[in-house]
Amino acid sequence: MSGSSFGNNITVTTWGESHGKALGCVVDGFPAGMELTEEDIQKYLDRRKPGTSSATTSRKEDDLVEILSGVFEGKTTGTPISMMVRNTSQKSADYSEIASYYRPGHADYGFDKKFGFRDYRGGGRSSGRETVARVAAGALCAKLLGEMGISVTAFTKSIGSVEIDPAISDFSVRLTTPTAMPDVEADQKAMDLINKCREKKDSIGGVIECRITGIPAGIGEPVFDKLDAMLAHAVMSIGAVKAVEIGDGVKVASYYGSENNDAFEAIGNKISKKTNHSGGILGGMSDGSEIVLRAYVKPTPSIASTQQTINRDGENIDINIHGRHDPVVVPRAVVVVESMCAITLLDLMISNMSSRAESIISFYK
Amino acid sequence: MSGSSFGNNITVTTWGESHGKALGCVVDGFPAGMELTEEDIQKYLDRRKPGTSSATTSRKEDDLVEILSGVFEGKTTGTPISMMVRNTSQKSADYSEIASYYRPGHADYGFDKKFGFRDYRGGGRSSGRETVARVAAGALCAKLLGEMGISVTAFTKSIGSVEIDPAISDFSVRLTTPTAMPDVEADQKAMDLINKCREKKDSIGGVIECRITGIPAGIGEPVFDKLDAMLAHAVMSIGAVKAVEIGDGVKVASYYGSENNDAFEAIGNKISKKTNHSGGILGGMSDGSEIVLRAYVKPTPSIASTQQTINRDGENIDINIHGRHDPVVVPRAVVVVESMCAITLLDLMISNMSSRAESIISFYK
Amino acid sequence: MSGSSFGNNITVTTWGESHGKALGCVVDGFPAGMELTEEDIQKYLDRRKPGTSSATTSRKEDDLVEILSGVFEGKTTGTPISMMVRNTSQKSADYSEIASYYRPGHADYGFDKKFGFRDYRGGGRSSGRETVARVAAGALCAKLLGEMGISVTAFTKSIGSVEIDPAISDFSVRLTTPTAMPDVEADQKAMDLINKCREKKDSIGGVIECRITGIPAGIGEPVFDKLDAMLAHAVMSIGAVKAVEIGDGVKVASYYGSENNDAFEAIGNKISKKTNHSGGILGGMSDGSEIVLRAYVKPTPSIASTQQTINRDGENIDINIHGRHDPVVVPRAVVVVESMCAITLLDLMISNMSSRAESIISFYK
Amino acid sequence: MSGSSFGNNITVTTWGESHGKALGCVVDGFPAGMELTEEDIQKYLDRRKPGTSSATTSRKEDDLVEILSGVFEGKTTGTPISMMVRNTSQKSADYSEIASYYRPGHADYGFDKKFGFRDYRGGGRSSGRETVARVAAGALCAKLLGEMGISVTAFTKSIGSVEIDPAISDFSVRLTTPTAMPDVEADQKAMDLINKCREKKDSIGGVIECRITGIPAGIGEPVFDKLDAMLAHAVMSIGAVKAVEIGDGVKVASYYGSENNDAFEAIGNKISKKTNHSGGILGGMSDGSEIVLRAYVKPTPSIASTQQTINRDGENIDINIHGRHDPVVVPRAVVVVESMCAITLLDLMISNMSSRAESIISFYK
Repeated sequence: MSGSSFGNNITVTTWGESHGKALGCVVDGFPAGMELTEEDIQKYLDRRKPGTSSATTSRKEDDLVEILSGVFEGKTTGTPISMMVRNTSQKSADYSEIASYYRPGHADYGFDKKFGFRDYRGGGRSSGRETVARVAAGALCAKLLGEMGISVTAFTKSIGSVEIDPAISDFSVRLTTPTAMPDVEADQKAMDLINKCREKKDSIGGVIECRITGIPAGIGEPVFDKLDAMLAHAVMSIGAVKAVEIGDGVKVASYYGSENNDAFEAIGNKISKKTNHSGGILGGMSDGSEIVLRAYVKPTPSIASTQQTINRDGENIDINIHGRHDPVVVPRAVVVVESMCAITLLDLMISNMSSRAESIISFYK
Repeated sequence: MSGSSFGNNITVTTWGESHGKALGCVVDGFPAGMELTEEDIQKYLDRRKPGTSSATTSRKEDDLVEILSGVFEGKTTGTPISMMVRNTSQKSADYSEIASYYRPGHADYGFDKKFGFRDYRGGGRSSGRETVARVAAGALCAKLLGEMGISVTAFTKSIGSVEIDPAISDFSVRLTTPTAMPDVEADQKAMDLINKCREKKDSIGGVIECRITGIPAGIGEPVFDKLDAMLAHAVMSIGAVKAVEIGDGVKVASYYGSENNDAFEAIGNKISKKTNHSGGILGGMSDGSEIVLRAYVKPTPSIASTQQTINRDGENIDINIHGRHDPVVVPRAVVVVESMCAITLLDLMISNMSSRAESIISFYK
Repeated sequence: MSGSSFGNNITVTTWGESHGKALGCVVDGFPAGMELTEEDIQKYLDRRKPGTSSATTSRKEDDLVEILSGVFEGKTTGTPISMMVRNTSQKSADYSEIASYYRPGHADYGFDKKFGFRDYRGGGRSSGRETVARVAAGALCAKLLGEMGISVTAFTKSIGSVEIDPAISDFSVRLTTPTAMPDVEADQKAMDLINKCREKKDSIGGVIECRITGIPAGIGEPVFDKLDAMLAHAVMSIGAVKAVEIGDGVKVASYYGSENNDAFEAIGNKISKKTNHSGGILGGMSDGSEIVLRAYVKPTPSIASTQQTINRDGENIDINIHGRHDPVVVPRAVVVVESMCAITLLDLMISNMSSRAESIISFYK
Repeated sequence: MSGSSFGNNITVTTWGESHGKALGCVVDGFPAGMELTEEDIQKYLDRRKPGTSSATTSRKEDDLVEILSGVFEGKTTGTPISMMVRNTSQKSADYSEIASYYRPGHADYGFDKKFGFRDYRGGGRSSGRETVARVAAGALCAKLLGEMGISVTAFTKSIGSVEIDPAISDFSVRLTTPTAMPDVEADQKAMDLINKCREKKDSIGGVIECRITGIPAGIGEPVFDKLDAMLAHAVMSIGAVKAVEIGDGVKVASYYGSENNDAFEAIGNKISKKTNHSGGILGGMSDGSEIVLRAYVKPTPSIASTQQTINRDGENIDINIHGRHDPVVVPRAVVVVESMCAITLLDLMISNMSSRAESIISFYK
């Protein structure tokens, strides 16, 4: 079974390993006629790129995207868009020791049990580096959503115990802070925490929030392919994510119905909800309100302090993982969450186009 | 686009509305040769059935399953297993008023926006009653998993602020309590809370936990079809679920790496982990430990107290929803979570069978 | 792996065995708002029904369809349409002997090798009776195509050496002849041949042609999901079909390019082709001309004359197959071909709706 | 909708245009542990390469494959195998004129109607050059099939009226003749015909046959994903193929049942069939005999003689297509047919591994 493809109408297939020749994706089913340049993709990739701040690893990866197919005379052609990022900075020597043991918190053990062996260089296929391909695909989808007035905005909500001011509403600041927090004060505190982690050879987790505005009501399919189910699939498939919630999420478990229900109201012609506990999704379909999703991200499993584990011969050993690792995954994962949400949304918006017989009939008239 | 099918190897397709003639499912790809009777299915359906306790609605639904195909001489044939439950107790008159307005917390509004109209009787396709078909399919998958020594056990962890004793390890008690809690004391307290909700014309949320034991390491596909991503998709597709977490879930966002990493250890030939913060899944694959998943369930949106909403003409109105509704969804949803997890697991276990070239070669030798 | 579902946007899943309780299908993804009654389906099923003429078996099957879900107040709801036909006339006693051996020309041997055992009653899942479910789904799709001015018309082109007059253009006659030929003279000759086959305890093959008119250019996806590839898949999946051709098909292998190419021409605003060797499909997409497809159908494998085969113990034996079998499959398969083409076409027409970015943008404006 | 992916367990996604930067494929789901070098792929690509004989175009394409991912230390890793062939010899100037009109027999018109514009250089995505990616994927699958003793062998059966000697059984000769015929005499005659076509600025069609040996009984899924249906889909998706038949194919339409049925016989422990009219497939599953498939290929639509067509403004014009075109598609398409059959077969063999509950149970014991 495959498992490296996502989406039914827009199908994104990613490939590549951390220390292989390159990583990339094929986006099949993307519609024709949208203007697209490598620059459109690059600006998303740059947000994921390490080495740009002290919050991230000192490894330098240029991550320059090359569009190999599916664009002609500056526009998408409707045929598969193949994009590739060459690996340039990988030093396999860094990782040779890892081959012999199973790092705690990593996929190493499962990989060996499943496939019989693994590409141990930097995590191989299960490296966070795989997400470079997701971001390239997400940039594409986000662009088309943008042309429909839909914005997908993820940001760092917290790192460890440092949280952003809940009153903040200008999320564009996230593009300028090393933590991807839209709050410069919290960012400063979080940076202190991150630096402390690095000193202590430790790492820390955090929360990413994603807000989607401009989406009409009715997106998502009622049963298994609910909008929230697809978003949960998309976001939980990002390596370090251990929980996903929609709207008030975890909290609703202790709510009364009278607290949790959002009243609909009409103000003139405009229909809205007085509150948004639902996070913009009811019964698996968008309800016309802002969609709010949160991903809970674990601390980077690669830490420099001593850990107990076993080697491939089943012996108990102590290890110290060397190498250049981010003390926190969150800041670079923000654009990955944004990307996965954009892909999911566009995919379901296309599904929705054939929900009514009259839409099909009028399309072909 | 469809959206009423789930699973790649074992594909479950559900159909039916709350107040239609019947509900059912087709399970395609289920392997041949497993003994199966309607009784195997019925005992799962009975756990979902309302009217069995004061925790649930007083509606009486017999929910008798009929196996229509795919079983011959007491064994599955490898061809689609079609199962059906006739609707017998539905009174459409109960719901006639609902046709004209959008209930808060329900799919009504999205349905109308998407499809242009809706089967308004009891929520139609978006009724919790749709899950009867999921449970029938889940019973099937759980049986085969059981024959491999794998158990999937869900239970009510909390209702409102009432939580079970975290030390409890005998979950079979959940089959005997009205709340599906494996803790008779907590069950009693929760029942008090539920009764209070009913009096106040209100409802309450809760948490369902699912534990999976006996699963080998390496199940799940490394990238998009990670075990946790598929489980999140499966469980978030259950109507009232607003958050899903694996292992320590939400909490990992404030952990340090040194706290969160689970050390592998070998005791003789047996490999295990000293802790299980990961909830049995690392890098999207099972790590050999118990799988732990939690679903956060919102309070029943249908409440009898007065609510504000709009009607189909876009006018602001006040409503009082009548009818027989569970004050809490959780107890009946427990077996639905169990079912969705069983389907997901079996599906990915089949995917995993072709992970190695040598397995394919030796199968055909 | 499943294999009982067909279609990406409109997904048809069939279930049921020849002598089980019932047969049926679930059509998921069918759009909302189309008027639909059981009568719309029944008139297609009646064309497949045996016992209506001397060309077919004397078995009597009422094949009354019941719509179980997906239709409300006379219109499709956009949710799965479940349809069922109860088996009423099946006598399992007829088939008990078959359990012990492998009938030549049948799926028996493959079934046992694949699944370890089989439902031997009347061929079980591999019976032609499975197609009753396809026809129910096809009737649905054909109705929506009809509302867009697209007609899908299959007919018997030949039985054995008896061919219809190639000049015939009024295909509606096929609905009135026992052979489903649109030519009463050829029909008479074919009936003579069929009766001779029955006397000789033999059977005969034939050719079904399908014409599709009214389809716009550009339907079908350029690479693997070409319109002709999907049609070939759909039609070759009908039990007795051993070859499928598009347009001049087999003959093009001996053509010169100058003969085979169809010149485009414009007459006023209307674009057409001077000839139609291509059968309406170029590069996997409709070219605006009539689509022409032919299915070559083998003779009924169940014949009453003595045949050599082996039993389940691997011994060579002679058999005489008893029971009520059609001496020719073709007349009843005509509506099955029509159905599979209708499903395929509608499915690809929906795919095509998102080919252009501007279509998506304008849908959501 | 996508349409550039094929296969359920082994999923092949192709990308790239005739005159873009490169073409390639991603093979997802390929099992781990098979030895693989670029040379394994290259030898298949070389069979498709033009410019190697006078039967094909004089264009020189090196078609050197680069494996970008999914192979580590000489073995497949179980993760996506990405392969790429850079375009080096393409001269876009050759094709500039084509932009303005619709070539007869080509996808040009459908492309413009579907997508609003097209990459007109050499046919863009609908160029036969797309098949380079299929062959790379096919080489991979054929290698694993070979390790199980299964051989997939396609060859040219006829070009125009020139047919190979039907008695020929050593098909390896096809690797040495310019026409890919396994018959040196017929090859000589066919070359004369091809040269005559080139002189007359014309082209010619032909037939490709594919034989598959060593396949066990029971491969293929009983209903829609029948082995023959999947093979028909796979082979009909190759650009110039207009008909596909299995076994005696078209001829069975005029057979009597007593002629067409193949008697099973046991010789000692070995079960076989006395004849093979079925072409190795019964009821959609392999029956243990050799699989025989034929593809009917149309003449190259690009011919140098004058043709009538219309331009993008809807005006009737005369055109003469220049450029370097094969006068016959068949010889280079032979390895494409072989590739598509290999992919299909391996995919269904993996599906078949979970047909029995006991196989799943024993895999996990």
